[in-house]
Amino acid sequence: MVELKDDERLDYLLAEDLRIIQSPSVFAFSLDAVLLARFVYVPIQKGSLIDLCSGNGVIPLFLSARTKGEITGVEIQDRLYDMAVRSIEYNQLGGRLKMVHGDIKEMPKQLGYGKFDVVTCNPPYFKTPATREINENEHLAIARHEILCTLEDAIKASSELVRARGKVAFVHRPGRMIDIIELMRKYKLEPKRIQFVYPKAGKEANTILIEAIKHGSPDLKIENPLIVYNENDEYTPELREILYGKE
Amino acid sequence: MVELKDDERLDYLLAEDLRIIQSPSVFAFSLDAVLLARFVYVPIQKGSLIDLCSGNGVIPLFLSARTKGEITGVEIQDRLYDMAVRSIEYNQLGGRLKMVHGDIKEMPKQLGYGKFDVVTCNPPYFKTPATREINENEHLAIARHEILCTLEDAIKASSELVRARGKVAFVHRPGRMIDIIELMRKYKLEPKRIQFVYPKAGKEANTILIEAIKHGSPDLKIENPLIVYNENDEYTPELREILYGKE
Repeated sequence: MVELKDDERLDYLLAEDLRIIQSPSVFAFSLDAVLLARFVYVPIQKGSLIDLCSGNGVIPLFLSARTKGEITGVEIQDRLYDMAVRSIEYNQLGGRLKMVHGDIKEMPKQLGYGKFDVVTCNPPYFKTPATREINENEHLAIARHEILCTLEDAIKASSELVRARGKVAFVHRPGRMIDIIELMRKYKLEPKRIQFVYPKAGKEANTILIEAIKHGSPDLKIENPLIVYNENDEYTPELREILYGKE
Repeated sequence: MVELKDDERLDYLLAEDLRIIQSPSVFAFSLDAVLLARFVYVPIQKGSLIDLCSGNGVIPLFLSARTKGEITGVEIQDRLYDMAVRSIEYNQLGGRLKMVHGDIKEMPKQLGYGKFDVVTCNPPYFKTPATREINENEHLAIARHEILCTLEDAIKASSELVRARGKVAFVHRPGRMIDIIELMRKYKLEPKRIQFVYPKAGKEANTILIEAIKHGSPDLKIENPLIVYNENDEYTPELREILYGKE
């Protein structure tokens, strides 16, 4: 059993045989997290993976279905860290999933430089606005805005944590693509695969998935377009498979 | 009438009411040129446009159907320049289309710095290989490899030719995207719109269209995906419209 606090729910993790604690007022995972967990390269039989800005642990939980390796999640917010820990317990994954409560900028010193095969990160998307405009819900504000963690913080920490030739994958908004590429190259992460997510076939992309290799050589692929809804506003077959598995 | 030399043909320019001289052994335009001529922003009623690495003049000819402005094409190869001049004559567009025979690196000095509202370029795609590997047909080799014009030459010349706030649009292979972005920023061209072209819905992109603004502010959009063929290897409705017009 698991203790649920306040307005928390125990939701199904879609295609995976897993459950996750969420709360509408504190944090609920987004499609972006699902897409990143599916996009990133993972070693199947073993390896060390780390997810930064983990929130309620959604990406570590998803990754646990794709790899037998060990997965660490890092979350700075007490309340979200606590939700992630309880979800891991509920799913009896404590043997190879663990959460670390702390600041991603401290993790290389705390966990070791170049110790991870794979780093994932779904960072806060928005540059920090004037204080009065910030989301009044502090949990959501920290998760959404670059208050405790800038894009550069996240990319620098990723580069320090990953081993040479290891993979680093981020999800973000397309408008930040150039910043992401420039920061990745600054920290010796060479972008190798990008996938754009388009809400509909005729619309601009609203999400970018990007994977880099530490000390990799330049050679970029733009993967097939991922289109979320068809013209009737139903999930496309590709999205249904990602969310609910093969039918 | 028009004089056709050797194996030249007078082909229709698809959706446009225009004809173009081509030669299978010397130069025939590609889908990429059509897509660039359609992708780029153009002022409709007037303006000065310039197309670099024009080949047989396909992009100026296409642009002439979208704008009443004046269009200059620049081509270094004698044989292709000559084909372009004859096509312009045949279409009786000499009043507002002209070809310049020369090296794009000389054009800012020759035609003026910051004099153009729009610059387009479909440059050679391949880094110059060892001499023995270069296409034995010299015309095709120069058009395809960075022999007489590197990507940096083309972006630098574009930046010098365009006015402040003017547009520069390139078509290229996605693998060069990072080089293109870095070179554009080096020459004060800020990428604002990118469109990827995917041969099929489930395939990697094989073409990138990118438009920048001289001295623009950072704000990038990834336009809707352009998919060329459906699963039966027929053109998609969107491509048919681009190629043959509304049906």
